[in-house]
This record gives sequence, structure tokens and C-alpha cells, in this order.
Amino acid sequence: MAIRLGQNRYGKSRVRLLRATRHDGWNEIKELTLAISFEGDFETVHTKGDNSKVLPTDTIKNTVYALARKHPMKSAEDFAMNLIGHFFSKNEYVSRVRVDAVEDLWTRILVDGKPHPSAFVRAGEEKRTALLDGTRDGVAIRAGIMNLIAMKTADSAFEGFMRDAYTTLKEDRDRIMATSIRARWLYDGMAIAFDSTWEGVKSALLEAFAGHKSESLQHTLYAMGEAVLAKFGQIREIHLSLPNKHYNLLNLSPFGMENPAEVFLPTDEPHGLIEGTVQRD
Amino acid sequence: MAIRLGQNRYGKSRVRLLRATRHDGWNEIKELTLAISFEGDFETVHTKGDNSKVLPTDTIKNTVYALARKHPMKSAEDFAMNLIGHFFSKNEYVSRVRVDAVEDLWTRILVDGKPHPSAFVRAGEEKRTALLDGTRDGVAIRAGIMNLIAMKTADSAFEGFMRDAYTTLKEDRDRIMATSIRARWLYDGMAIAFDSTWEGVKSALLEAFAGHKSESLQHTLYAMGEAVLAKFGQIREIHLSLPNKHYNLLNLSPFGMENPAEVFLPTDEPHGLIEGTVQRD
Amino acid sequence: MAIRLGQNRYGKSRVRLLRATRHDGWNEIKELTLAISFEGDFETVHTKGDNSKVLPTDTIKNTVYALARKHPMKSAEDFAMNLIGHFFSKNEYVSRVRVDAVEDLWTRILVDGKPHPSAFVRAGEEKRTALLDGTRDGVAIRAGIMNLIAMKTADSAFEGFMRDAYTTLKEDRDRIMATSIRARWLYDGMAIAFDSTWEGVKSALLEAFAGHKSESLQHTLYAMGEAVLAKFGQIREIHLSLPNKHYNLLNLSPFGMENPAEVFLPTDEPHGLIEGTVQRD
Amino acid sequence: MAIRLGQNRYGKSRVRLLRATRHDGWNEIKELTLAISFEGDFETVHTKGDNSKVLPTDTIKNTVYALARKHPMKSAEDFAMNLIGHFFSKNEYVSRVRVDAVEDLWTRILVDGKPHPSAFVRAGEEKRTALLDGTRDGVAIRAGIMNLIAMKTADSAFEGFMRDAYTTLKEDRDRIMATSIRARWLYDGMAIAFDSTWEGVKSALLEAFAGHKSESLQHTLYAMGEAVLAKFGQIREIHLSLPNKHYNLLNLSPFGMENPAEVFLPTDEPHGLIEGTVQRD
Repeated sequence: MAIRLGQNRYGKSRVRLLRATRHDGWNEIKELTLAISFEGDFETVHTKGDNSKVLPTDTIKNTVYALARKHPMKSAEDFAMNLIGHFFSKNEYVSRVRVDAVEDLWTRILVDGKPHPSAFVRAGEEKRTALLDGTRDGVAIRAGIMNLIAMKTADSAFEGFMRDAYTTLKEDRDRIMATSIRARWLYDGMAIAFDSTWEGVKSALLEAFAGHKSESLQHTLYAMGEAVLAKFGQIREIHLSLPNKHYNLLNLSPFGMENPAEVFLPTDEPHGLIEGTVQRD
Repeated sequence: MAIRLGQNRYGKSRVRLLRATRHDGWNEIKELTLAISFEGDFETVHTKGDNSKVLPTDTIKNTVYALARKHPMKSAEDFAMNLIGHFFSKNEYVSRVRVDAVEDLWTRILVDGKPHPSAFVRAGEEKRTALLDGTRDGVAIRAGIMNLIAMKTADSAFEGFMRDAYTTLKEDRDRIMATSIRARWLYDGMAIAFDSTWEGVKSALLEAFAGHKSESLQHTLYAMGEAVLAKFGQIREIHLSLPNKHYNLLNLSPFGMENPAEVFLPTDEPHGLIEGTVQRD
Repeated sequence: MAIRLGQNRYGKSRVRLLRATRHDGWNEIKELTLAISFEGDFETVHTKGDNSKVLPTDTIKNTVYALARKHPMKSAEDFAMNLIGHFFSKNEYVSRVRVDAVEDLWTRILVDGKPHPSAFVRAGEEKRTALLDGTRDGVAIRAGIMNLIAMKTADSAFEGFMRDAYTTLKEDRDRIMATSIRARWLYDGMAIAFDSTWEGVKSALLEAFAGHKSESLQHTLYAMGEAVLAKFGQIREIHLSLPNKHYNLLNLSPFGMENPAEVFLPTDEPHGLIEGTVQRD
Repeated sequence: MAIRLGQNRYGKSRVRLLRATRHDGWNEIKELTLAISFEGDFETVHTKGDNSKVLPTDTIKNTVYALARKHPMKSAEDFAMNLIGHFFSKNEYVSRVRVDAVEDLWTRILVDGKPHPSAFVRAGEEKRTALLDGTRDGVAIRAGIMNLIAMKTADSAFEGFMRDAYTTLKEDRDRIMATSIRARWLYDGMAIAFDSTWEGVKSALLEAFAGHKSESLQHTLYAMGEAVLAKFGQIREIHLSLPNKHYNLLNLSPFGMENPAEVFLPTDEPHGLIEGTVQRD
């Protein structure tokens, strides 16, 4: 039985970049970390050590910097489109180019209540993401958010679940629900207002999380996905990955105390993990 | 030459806690992670295995939860004061109690532009800290902030420095300056408005960072410390630890391009580290 | 256009476990961290908030502990098989159960050169992994290793690659090659000597890495995969993910020094990433 | 009340370095990450923006690479001594130079049971450390180890401790004890066989941990420190920092099962933390 190469890819990860734009003292910045990978006809690279079809990953990195200089950087999505176009035009052996971008978010420092023209502070713990998957036939664009940490102290229940011999969990009409939202959504086409849509989806996710009468984290996941699809017609589907970051009510009865939903133990180990896609039919 | 026990301490770290307060549907939350340590007369614990003077670290943890239930939690500083008072009153062998608190910051989710009564989102990547160092003679209270990430794209120079045989750095009148601010300040006494002062110091640090005509990160460190001491009479001294998170201008000349302060390489390895205390005479 | 639930799963992650086995003073330990997920008929959980088909993730966790007590724990693979069998027998709505195990490795402390019967030290930075993917039709068993960090200072070249306008990399017949090996391999069937095979694969990977005359990391990836398949007939395919952890030769000419492959700058940002599957035809 | 600069220092952190040494096909490697800091007469740097006394941190980094080329690298301690000597000879304003080194440990890959001449694998999760604190009067040399993870499943008790209203911990004659050893020891003078002493201290720490009849982690800390001082006359004192990484016996009685010290829950949050110095009188 012969041995052969199966699916494979190569590229450069953790390519970091800050792009500053300067207009008469009013500066703008965008900070990205990119992972770029190629698939294609690379069999003999592996089997024969023939590098003639391999663009070095060092060149992939250099291309990021050269193209960042050539083009204004409106959004990670736009920039990734430029990269994919460039790589396909120059590398006939490449059949798929993926660009995975993570953006560190900055906001202006307020001085006397006014946004400073050239000083910035990290906007939040969450990151904006973009994942573009390009073939010779087209590019699928997925935007996303990760590490958006949210909690609600009301309107969250978990009751009526299955029980077996190992079930000790109590029914709860009023628990804390907390998660770190990770979402990725697929756009229909490319003519998207990437920045305003991203802001809109972020708000829709948080508003749905806040307002939902939750029977489970699954139930809330669906409500969040539905809210996004209902509001943004150009989104085809959204995938949500929601860890259930447990805040367990502490039992203070050994100290002769009641605990009327006041003192909780936050814990990350173990955690539930709920994942699902909400999509148009 | 005999062998003996020198300085020693013990305690519990990573004690996590969420305190919720509920007023007719309007909820408040505070999330802390505590490290508590005791010093005292513990020599025979080490040398003889005699545990009769050792309050278990498990009890230290339980005490956190019991006292969180007993007292409203106005601030980490107030809560730590309660803990220290409790431990000294019950443990005659203890001569020093330290409480080191790190607070995860939450803000309300906005729904239709209005703060939600019971749903929250992480406020930022920065953490609020409090370090209380108590002896039988009194308690020193230090508040702080960490992981407050800031950048400026103008008004930062580094020139006129010493040069030796290994110096290759170029003088720069217009570089990017970025750091992750870690500050701790010592209060004069205990009658402090902890929350509003913390907010004020955070703003003062960011405003000084933004507005300073910087000749070096050391120069800006001093300006930041001075701004805080000038504004807050109840602060005796402030210690700042500022990594110089380099954003290096990329050399694009191999690609036939100029780079007029537009495309930068962010890097954390290596980084400068500038640390200093600014204090009243 | 209607909105509906797509692919989804739920479960418990970061379930940690130490299983000790005691034989007349000779103790054995196994430490695992598990992630378990279910797929199945869970649509109304999401869309209606109907929990009647949901086994709580808390119960999934409890089941791990109960079954760890019931069965001797020979290997992560055996234990995961027991878990999958249990969950399918009790939960008719579940169509797929995945168990992802990461094992922290321990070895005995040597005292006077002899293995201690009940004291252990962490064996290495690498982790042993097992991923079992069970449906009603059968279970696919993948074993693996991650974080196995290796370096070679000879027999590594990278030459003859493609060049374009952004290529500045020099050809190199004698570079350092370093990586953090992440491998997963698929077994043919279930009658496998899991422990000895894992040890054998680990050795085969390292020996192939060490002995290969490398023309690229892709070339070495293939040689490593081929070595494993050649030696272990019960392995159908192996997937390797190899970051190229660059050790860049430092240019010391500004200080009037040559650098004959002696002083290198290790860096993780950016890094190449080479991934591929080697399989039987 | 005037404002002034208090204690301050500056330097470069995360300076990474691999030094390879080649002897006719037999290669040796040493990988270090350094943090170097200067104290001295730097007041006007802060208060006036006068950089004339500041050697750039970029030059500090370059110096590491130049000196790594100039000198054979026998140990981190020797290399740090060279750095300190160099910096004092060239920088009259510097009164203190600290070098903090962390070494990633490598061992040779075995091929057919024999150590390979030029291929290496990470030796363990632990790191070797060296901290040299130099003034114009001399250098204090501290060696150390961190992240050395150890566990014992016998000979560990915790009984007879203090109890108060919040104590719920049960006495235990037979618990699991686990920790991540962090140790730093101070040498008497500089004429030390750094490599063999480090190996000896590591063994002595592990052997003492393994063999001790422990009444508490404090008790074992002292035994470990005493064992090192008894064996190595050139060590003046040793500081140990030992987190108590709890492995809690799981209560399986809700499932109708006993748990005779077989199934444990490992947890890092919260953890005890025991710290102490053992020294010669």
C-alpha cells in the first residue's frame, strides 16, 4: 500500500502590522495580525524537496508590508481582498489563498472631553476578525468578533432538562449567565459596508443577549443569531461559539448564612461550550 | 553553621468572587480576584510540622465569601480593609496581612442607547488593582491600574542619547510611542473616595500621556506621575512601570518604496522597560 | 426567506481529572483534561427553549468522574471509548459524541537513581492527545502529540525557491530548523496497543526530524509522516502541523564582526506554518 | 510640597538569543531570554528630557549579541558577568546593572538510542534561571529554577490546624500534594561550578520533596531548603515559592460510590501559596 501526500497548505502566521494615516495632524491607525496560507500544487515540494514552486513565507510577509504601503487601509476585509488578488495574479500554482485577520481595536484618548488627534487607548478586550477564503472562482468573506465578554444577572433560567443517575444539577429560574462571545458571519457578496455592519452586528448580538428571556444558553445563541440575520440582509449565516462561563452560587450555609443570589464563584474550569450556526433557508 | 528559616509567608491566591447587588430590578456587580497572605510566628510550622498556629488557606478563602455576604461591597479597598480587620482580630500569631485585589471591569450593555439594568459587557482590557498591606500598626493602601494600553503617533522623539560601539539606533523626532501602563499609587490615610479617585487618576494618566511633548519614555513617565500628584493631594507617591512596546518603521526600500511613517512592525520581543516612582518630597 | 438552525453541538470543556491507582505502595497516576461534545436532535432547545432532550453539561462532567471510578484507566483512548458507549446507551437524541483528551505527562522522581513509588515530576512540555469521534456506526480514534519542541542545527537548507519583486530572503544551505510538532494520526480499528504505539510514533517523529537531509520544512514534514506510516501498519494517515520557529542569523557586521552561524535571534512573530496529511493510498 | 523622582530603572526585556557552538559536527546550543536593567544618575532624563546619559535600550540589546559572539557561552551566569563588566566599564552614570536570565533547556534527540550530534528536543517544562545583581562593589549571583512541576501521592498530611467559624476543611492524613517549584538561591562568591551545582540542586529539591513525611507544604518547603543547604556549602540561602496546586478528592457519594483516594479534581483556582527563605545563620 503506497504512501502519498494528502491535503496540505503552507503560509505565514502572526504577521503584525500597524498602518498609520496622517491628515494634517489628525491621525488614524489600524493594527492587524494576519495569518496567510496557500493551497495548490505543492506535492513535489514535500516528496522531492523541489522548491521551484514555493514562494517563501518570508515573501508572503514582505508582500503584506508592501501592499499596506500601496493601498489605503479601509478595513481588514478590503486589505485581504488586495492580498488575495495579488497572490493569485503572481502564483499560478496556488489554488486557494486564505487570509485570517485579527484586529486590535483602538479608540481616541479623551482630553478635556474631546478626542485627541494622535493619541489612542485600547478600545476593549474584544477583537474584530476577518477570514477571507479565496479560490480562482471567488472569495468567501467572513467577518467576526471574539473575546466579547458579557454577563446577565436576570432573565436566565435552566429547567426541565433530562436527568440520569449522574445528574445533581438543580433547576434554576434565576441564574447568572456569562459568556465570551465568538461569532463569525458569512457575507453575501463583497459590496458590504464592512465597518458599519460590524458595529451593527456587535450591537445586535449584545442587545439580543441582554434582552432575551433565556431558557438555556442554546436558546440565547439562537436568539442572537436570529437577531443578526433579521437585521442584516447581506449576512447569509452566522456561527456562534459561546462558552458557558459558570458563576456558581456559593453555599454559605456552613457559616449559618443564606445567599440570596449575591455571592458567586466565577470559574473557567470546567465550562460548558455551546456552538451553532443560524442560517437562511 | 546552623540553618534556619528566614522571611516567609503563606496564603491563598486566585480567590475569585462576583458580588451582585439587587435593587428592584437594577443590578450591580463587582468581580474580584484576590491573593491574601499572612506573615507571623510560623517557624515551627516549617521546622517541626506543628500546624497549631496555621489557619488553613481554605479558611482564608471561605472568609472571603462569608465577608462578601456580610458587607456591602463598595470597593475592593473597603472590602480588603474588612478582611484585614477580621484576620487580625482572630489570629494572634499573624503580624502582617496583605490583600492584593484585581478587578475585572464591567459596564452596562446599551439597548436602544440606554444602559440595561441587568446585562453587562467587559469594560476594557485594563484591570483595576488594590494592594493593602496591613500590620498591627496600620494599613498602607495602594490603588492601581494595569494593562492600560496606549499609543501616540505624534509628539514623541528620542534624540541626543549616548552612543557606543554597539549603537546603531537612529535619532528620531517623530516616532510612535506605545506602552501598557501599570501604575500603583499610595494613599495618604484611608478616608479616600476610592472609585472617583481611581477614575480621576486613570484620566490624568491618559491625558498626560496624550498631551506630553515626549523626549523619551522616561520623560513621559515623569510627566504622568507629576500630573497625578499635582491633581490628587491625597496621593503620596506613584510608581509607574512602562514597557516600551516598539512599533518599528519598516524599511520598504528593497521594494523601491519610501515609508513616510505609515507602515510599522509592532513587536513585543524585545521591549524596553522603564520603571520609576514619582513622589512628594 | 426563513431563518433556521444549522449545524450545532454542545458539551463540557476543561473537565480535569487525576486518576490514581494504588498497588501496595506503588502508585500510578494519569492526568487528563477532557472536552466532550454532543450532536443530535436539539433544534427545539434552540428555537423553543425546550430542554427536555438536554442532558446538562454538569451531568456530562459528573459522568466523567463516575466512570473514572468504575473503570481502571489504562489509556485516554480506552476511557473515551467507555464514555462514548455510556452516552450513546443513555441518550437517544444524541447522534455524535466527540471526546477530546489532553494528557499531562508525568514521570517518577529518581531518588538515588531509583524511580520513587509515589512521587512524580512533569515529564516534558509536550502533551499526549486523543480525539475520539463516535457515531452510532462506529468510532474513529485519533491519537496525537502537541507542543513537542525540536531543533536541528545541521542538515537543513532552503534554496531554489520562487522569487518575485518582494523576495529578499537569501538562499541558505545551512540554517537552523526549529518547530513545535503537533501531530494527529488515525488508527485502523480499535485493537491498538495505545501506549506503546504512542511512544513509538513519538520516537519515529523525532528520529525522522533528526536524520532528514532537509530541503524545506515541507520536505521534512513528509519524511516524518512517511516514517510513521512505514513503521506502524495500523495507522491510516497522519496530519502534521509544524510552525517554522525562525532562528535568524544575526547580522553583526555593524559591530565589525562576522557571525559564522553562532549567534541567532529566536522569534515567534511571524512564523511560517506548514500543515499536511500523509496517508495510505 | 515639591514633587521629585524616586527610585527608577530602565533597560531591555525579552532579549532572546540562541548561541550555537560547533565542533566538527558535534553541535552545542544554549537558548536564553534576558532582561537587563540599569540604575544610576538618570534624574534629568526624567525631569528635563535630557538624554545625554542614556545608553539606548536598543544598544543594550546589541551588546548582548556582540558579547555572545565574542565569548564562548559556558553558562548564563558567566555570560551575565561579562555583560555587567562591560556595562560598568563603559557607562559611568550607571550604579547598578541587573541581568535576569531564563534558559530554555534542550536535550539531544536519541536516534537508535544514541544522542544525535545536531538535533535537539526540549528537555522539560522547567526553566533554569540566573539573576545577577551588580553594583560597583560586587555582584550577587542567584541561580534558580522555575516551573518544575511535582506531585506526591503518599506521605502528605495536613492535620491539627487552627479552626474558626469559617473552617470547613477536613483533616487529612493522606492527601495528594502537588506544586510548581520556583527556587532561587544565592551563591557565596563567584567561583562556582554553575552547571553541575544547578543539576545537583534540582535533584536535591526533587529528592527532598519525594522523600519527606510531610505535615504541610510549609514543612516540606523547609525540608527542601535544608536539604539544599546541607549539601551545597557554597549556597548561602535559598528562597522557595510553592503554590499548593490542589487535587481535591471528588465526592462520588451522590452516585452511590465510595472514592478511596482514586479520582481527584485538579484545580489551579484558588491555590495556596507558600513562600519562604531557608538560610545559614
